[in-house]
Amino acid sequence: SEVAKLLELKAHLGTDDGKHSFVLKTPKGTRDYNPKQMAIRDKVFNIIIGCFKRHGAETIDTPVFELKETLTGKYGEDSKLIYDLKDQGGELLSLRYDLTVPFARYLAMNKITNIKRYHIAKVYRRDNPAMTRGRYREFYQCDFDIAGQYDPMIPDAECLKIVHEILSDLQIGDFRIKVNDRRILDGMFSICGVPDEKFRTICSTVDKLDKASWEEVKNEMVGEKGLAPEAADKIGEYVSMQGGADLAEKLLKDPILSQNKQAYSGLTDMKELFKYLELFNVTDKVIFDLSLARGLDYYTGVIYEAVLTQNQMEAQPQKQQNDHSTDEPVSVGSVAGGGRYDGLVGMFDPKGRKVPCVGVSIGIERIFSIMEQKAEASEEKIRTTETQVLVASAQKNLLEERLKLISELWAAGIKAEVMYKKNPKLLSQLQHCEETGIQLVAIVGEQELKDGVVKLRNVATRGEENVPRANVVEEIKRALQS
Amino acid sequence: SEVAKLLELKAHLGTDDGKHSFVLKTPKGTRDYNPKQMAIRDKVFNIIIGCFKRHGAETIDTPVFELKETLTGKYGEDSKLIYDLKDQGGELLSLRYDLTVPFARYLAMNKITNIKRYHIAKVYRRDNPAMTRGRYREFYQCDFDIAGQYDPMIPDAECLKIVHEILSDLQIGDFRIKVNDRRILDGMFSICGVPDEKFRTICSTVDKLDKASWEEVKNEMVGEKGLAPEAADKIGEYVSMQGGADLAEKLLKDPILSQNKQAYSGLTDMKELFKYLELFNVTDKVIFDLSLARGLDYYTGVIYEAVLTQNQMEAQPQKQQNDHSTDEPVSVGSVAGGGRYDGLVGMFDPKGRKVPCVGVSIGIERIFSIMEQKAEASEEKIRTTETQVLVASAQKNLLEERLKLISELWAAGIKAEVMYKKNPKLLSQLQHCEETGIQLVAIVGEQELKDGVVKLRNVATRGEENVPRANVVEEIKRALQS
Repeated sequence: SEVAKLLELKAHLGTDDGKHSFVLKTPKGTRDYNPKQMAIRDKVFNIIIGCFKRHGAETIDTPVFELKETLTGKYGEDSKLIYDLKDQGGELLSLRYDLTVPFARYLAMNKITNIKRYHIAKVYRRDNPAMTRGRYREFYQCDFDIAGQYDPMIPDAECLKIVHEILSDLQIGDFRIKVNDRRILDGMFSICGVPDEKFRTICSTVDKLDKASWEEVKNEMVGEKGLAPEAADKIGEYVSMQGGADLAEKLLKDPILSQNKQAYSGLTDMKELFKYLELFNVTDKVIFDLSLARGLDYYTGVIYEAVLTQNQMEAQPQKQQNDHSTDEPVSVGSVAGGGRYDGLVGMFDPKGRKVPCVGVSIGIERIFSIMEQKAEASEEKIRTTETQVLVASAQKNLLEERLKLISELWAAGIKAEVMYKKNPKLLSQLQHCEETGIQLVAIVGEQELKDGVVKLRNVATRGEENVPRANVVEEIKRALQS
Repeated sequence: SEVAKLLELKAHLGTDDGKHSFVLKTPKGTRDYNPKQMAIRDKVFNIIIGCFKRHGAETIDTPVFELKETLTGKYGEDSKLIYDLKDQGGELLSLRYDLTVPFARYLAMNKITNIKRYHIAKVYRRDNPAMTRGRYREFYQCDFDIAGQYDPMIPDAECLKIVHEILSDLQIGDFRIKVNDRRILDGMFSICGVPDEKFRTICSTVDKLDKASWEEVKNEMVGEKGLAPEAADKIGEYVSMQGGADLAEKLLKDPILSQNKQAYSGLTDMKELFKYLELFNVTDKVIFDLSLARGLDYYTGVIYEAVLTQNQMEAQPQKQQNDHSTDEPVSVGSVAGGGRYDGLVGMFDPKGRKVPCVGVSIGIERIFSIMEQKAEASEEKIRTTETQVLVASAQKNLLEERLKLISELWAAGIKAEVMYKKNPKLLSQLQHCEETGIQLVAIVGEQELKDGVVKLRNVATRGEENVPRANVVEEIKRALQS
């Protein structure tokens, strides 16, 4: 490691020719977006923001960093992944880890008790990046939250409806939304014989079931966390259960579980939730799954997580066909998650006043990856500009005519470009249109100048027509519409 | 200071009742945007992005932090204002200070030699904030840059055209755009007797002329920076000059200045620039001002800065009327700046290959402040949601009917809300519409259910009509258009 540092130092010190040699890269776990990626990102954002607005949400923004203490004690075991800023004198600051804690801080600070808001912004986690699978250290979250004291499960159901709408609108393949409730988990832990003080840490272990086998999870519970093997086995029976409203019904009849107050409230609410989801027409994708736990400390009620599912042939086209024996949907990763956190705002309020909240966070890096792959695979060319007209010249010494004309087009709101050369070749001007998808060329030439006209050329059809210079704006608008 | 730290520590340790006491605030120099401020921000962004797209720009994005060494040596005296991240193992990182250096890094890294791009993002400076005047530590920049080897002053002129368009479109009062050229400044320094090695530091001092008097600036030149008083006096004569193409003409005839190669190129280009600005119809606001210097190190050619101007009565309405004796426009602060930086990309290229660039950065915090004040002063109510319809109920026990109906509206792309109560009062539902500007209420009631209709109520006119439940989507779409 010392050697590695020295080698890195040497690499930075410069080369023989005396020039300073830079490491030309973005920081680990981050990336630039090029114009094509931005076009895809915009498309994704428009679908997501469109959905949030359809559901009547306002939007807010908060700083990229918060006081360090604002983030302290909110994330449990994940706190070690927070980026701190250097102490350069003044306040101790950290980059935001999610948008939920800043939202709770915002509500408490402004004494807001009712709001439905969305917030789309980057968050920061010093995690091990796996960028090909869409895991970054700087990544976007698209959050929608409903704060306020309301009747049970109505806002919760809307959050799930939103996940369903967004994942359907994005057209990135099939998906499932798993739901559970922290109260059901806690009740289950209690009746299985987990000591109270181990609820959160056993919950963290259960959360690993989407990546690890039950054997591994049990080993962690018993070996690392000191749980009795019988308790673990009882948990094992519960966390294998999946279903819908029927499972909630069944568990309400479980004589031991339903005696637990927490579990009983959770199961009653789960029944209610499925009733609303039925009315919202989304039960086809929602699964009540007792193994869903979610890592973060702040959830207090319903929790959920959406995963994309693909059969293996789609997911791994390079694999041999005989390698997959089933058409069962296989999870390829979480793209949304959330839940109810009724205690978080109270942690910021000087008097501990609570504001019940429920929300969902769409993680879009994985969605970008899929959309990018789709875009690359398709023949369709992505435009990265919206330019409608190129103002071109057919001969030399016409720069002034071009600048005068384009100035009129801009004033009329027409999106137009001009080549930054005094005497560009007509061919290179036409090529620029072909390459960037510009529909129309407005050509000034010596003959056209004499005749008081401008030549309009349709790039796709190559059709040309002369229009009067005086009416050029109207004629271009007409040509763009045809 | 040690006492202050201890007091602060004590404040954080908690109060008598055992509750942890937080400092509920955003970090110094930062702020949240509430939904109304976001509505204004969106409006400003739409105008700016609209202009950038009208001029054919693509967009990119870069990470909020860069490798520390990427920013090193680019900003001259301002480098001390860079935010560093804490060394938590791994790379040394800093928050971006502007969008120009990351853009140059992006070009070099991807070997791009031609691009016209915009980038709107937050940048970070550990400056002394003055938030009432729109000076923050976290603030947005809206950058438009043209990279590529082109004929002189054509892209430069388009940057100025863009500033003119945006500041006009924003309707935030009159403005001026000052232009100068680093080559003219360097030539001027040379003939006034400034030693070569003092060009950059004297340039930084000249840059203070917009805030400080000539006396103060001269004192800094002579006292702090050791310039001969005669040299300073010669500079003083030049930097008092303002004009247009005529001033460039006049200085080209200055026998000493025009003998300087740098100054001669700068002045010739300035004449050319004004020719293009004339064709773009923007010379009414552009001033060739020899006192404009700009602080940053990386400029190599034309530089510019836009300032808002107001007469004092507008600017300080609380001041007594007889206090202002003139209607002369008074600068209230810079809102845009930029220039040509032909050497920056080469600093990142391993072989030092240059990519000429020119660009402009719109600083919008000050613009937000003005727009916010305007919005507060005006009677017009700002909507923070786009909700078109509230799905309401006239009696109890109609939640399921409301949820079923709103689900149909969402599926049809109609922006709709429902109150999250099982039995909300009709009056409170109507009040919600009045408060948030929702145009239409779709009311389900017992009688309507029996009759197979939904009652549509226009919130503004209070007119009501019953429409068939089966056609409710079409009827609502019709009602929204009328």
